[in-house]
Amino acid sequence: MLPESAAKNSIGLVKPQSADITRPLKLACGAVLPSHKLVFETYGELNAERNNAILICHALSGDHHAAGFHEGDDKPGWWDHYIGPEKPIDSNKFFIVSVNNIGSCFGSTGPTSINPETGEAWGATFPSLRARDWVESQRLLMEHLQITCWAVVIGASLGGMQAMRWSLEHPDMVRHAVVIASAMKLTAQNIAFNEIARRAIKSDPDFCDGNYLQHNKVPARGLALARMIGHVTYLSDELMGQKFGRQLRIGDLIEKNNNPIEFQVESYLNYQGDKFSDAFDANSYILITKMLDYFDLSREYNNDPIAAFGHASCDFLVISFSSDWRFAPERSREITDALIAANKSVSYAEIESDKGHDAFLLPNARYEAALGNYLTRIATQLQGAE
Amino acid sequence: MLPESAAKNSIGLVKPQSADITRPLKLACGAVLPSHKLVFETYGELNAERNNAILICHALSGDHHAAGFHEGDDKPGWWDHYIGPEKPIDSNKFFIVSVNNIGSCFGSTGPTSINPETGEAWGATFPSLRARDWVESQRLLMEHLQITCWAVVIGASLGGMQAMRWSLEHPDMVRHAVVIASAMKLTAQNIAFNEIARRAIKSDPDFCDGNYLQHNKVPARGLALARMIGHVTYLSDELMGQKFGRQLRIGDLIEKNNNPIEFQVESYLNYQGDKFSDAFDANSYILITKMLDYFDLSREYNNDPIAAFGHASCDFLVISFSSDWRFAPERSREITDALIAANKSVSYAEIESDKGHDAFLLPNARYEAALGNYLTRIATQLQGAE
Repeated sequence: MLPESAAKNSIGLVKPQSADITRPLKLACGAVLPSHKLVFETYGELNAERNNAILICHALSGDHHAAGFHEGDDKPGWWDHYIGPEKPIDSNKFFIVSVNNIGSCFGSTGPTSINPETGEAWGATFPSLRARDWVESQRLLMEHLQITCWAVVIGASLGGMQAMRWSLEHPDMVRHAVVIASAMKLTAQNIAFNEIARRAIKSDPDFCDGNYLQHNKVPARGLALARMIGHVTYLSDELMGQKFGRQLRIGDLIEKNNNPIEFQVESYLNYQGDKFSDAFDANSYILITKMLDYFDLSREYNNDPIAAFGHASCDFLVISFSSDWRFAPERSREITDALIAANKSVSYAEIESDKGHDAFLLPNARYEAALGNYLTRIATQLQGAE
Repeated sequence: MLPESAAKNSIGLVKPQSADITRPLKLACGAVLPSHKLVFETYGELNAERNNAILICHALSGDHHAAGFHEGDDKPGWWDHYIGPEKPIDSNKFFIVSVNNIGSCFGSTGPTSINPETGEAWGATFPSLRARDWVESQRLLMEHLQITCWAVVIGASLGGMQAMRWSLEHPDMVRHAVVIASAMKLTAQNIAFNEIARRAIKSDPDFCDGNYLQHNKVPARGLALARMIGHVTYLSDELMGQKFGRQLRIGDLIEKNNNPIEFQVESYLNYQGDKFSDAFDANSYILITKMLDYFDLSREYNNDPIAAFGHASCDFLVISFSSDWRFAPERSREITDALIAANKSVSYAEIESDKGHDAFLLPNARYEAALGNYLTRIATQLQGAE
């Protein structure tokens, strides 16, 4: 049964699928995963030409459940506002593939999976990952699905990094890359926030040097802190002001009052932290924040983003949000400028929004139009080519 | 002996003094400190008219040691660049008083002091404090020093809040207030960062609900995290980029390398966190961050800053720094606009700086000129009045 809120243009009920990838996956760090499992969802139908597939790349804490409802769910997937029939990423026109990436913790092989060599959970011994490893794993899923070229690879934040990496590593397998609220590399400030989050996790005595599963413990306090730090950086100062201001949840700031006082924003953040620590794995958080830190689009291209994008052959749509200070518009302009200098086809939309980095998840008419129109043109071209 | 670096315009060796204030201090929360100790330093000489005294108000983690050297020190006090002979806060012209405030942890009465009623350290039971309590305690020190009016009360950040509070609570005891990188109240984002810092401290099992002293423990991990969070917000994104960029301290990001990797910025932040947790008290950190959160200049003035400043009779200098995102120039403009609307004498300088909130501590020619010229005019007026 779908909840009533799902009535309009919902994909409806969806079931996760899984693929056992038995081809060895060589990781950038030198390690090899002899086999791995990928959990994914698909929305819409693959056409006869098998050329209308869109790959959705999730960010740090994302999963495969991007749209529609699982049986019993009150809330749809994380990008449901943008994926569905007649939505910007239109499931009437495209075959949409959304995969939980390796190293994460929602069913695909990651730190909570059993390492076949030891018979125990990988935990902190799961190999270091790079965005290119996610791309390579997604390519093996692509083989599994018998798709030879993505119509579009699309992602926000770390998802945008995967889309860019796809365009460089497999230029013949991507027609369009949509890069939202992303960057060619993190700034020192970005890395600093990630490191504080990691240290919060590692400081939790229940982390047990990453072997908490073996000790039947969960570093929930550290993970909650990590999420709280991240969460503040995903929101804009302005949005937090509008949403919470200086409203109190408990107590009163009048004089002669020594009772507890709590601001709404404190309560909200503590709740978000606790909720997240119930759902996410601490080793995955460390692994994936490092993947973010290590990403540097042009490192292997002589640190020249123009030379790097010279290898791409797809078209690009780059989108940023005005109040996003974690992945500022300036970063998206750098991507766009490098693409222009590399003589690539690129559209850039800087969307006015007061919602910070989280804007990529939220309703916004101009964002919907920019994304929807771009994808509609692609769908029209595909139909013309039939 | 002074270190060689101290040669030019240094105050030289200074010794902390202390005052036992035996007059009861009524706190805003309703509690009363029957007596309290204040540790302070003075630089320069009080003139015969006793009207050339400047009060320095410290911020969250500050102390009384603002300038000069203690015996054996390698580094001078925290505001030594700005306080000394012929420096912007000129010890040849003014009698400068710098006090460690109550609730802090550098000798003045605070959570690490013994509660005379229990014979044990106050710890987490130290009464809740407001900026006005610091002002009241400073007023008692003023009595102790037989000063009836400050020529200038000056402070940055939380220090600026004290200067503003002085101007409203005791308009007849302040001639000039200098408010640097401050705000009339914190934003939701400010409160959020403070709350994450507090939660980091409280999450540390060694915090023992604030009774760590009784258990011979120190919540060093939590306090280090708290400082790391604060520290990132005191620096600008730009400065961190210049200072650290993506430089590695350990390891290499080449492929086929599964060895540890550490960015310079991670190492720097971890070092800053650890250093701070050796020097500061966790209960003081919680107490003073709450004081920051609770500060709201015009709460008792019908939430009208113009009405609030209507009570002031001193002149104001307001200073902000362009890259300060913790106490953004916008906050200082609000202060200035309210002062103008309240028909007060106010000068406002928005200083170009890439150094973030920390700019108030660092060399900057325009900042030095703005502050120095303002204070020189005051000194000249004082001489004219002799």
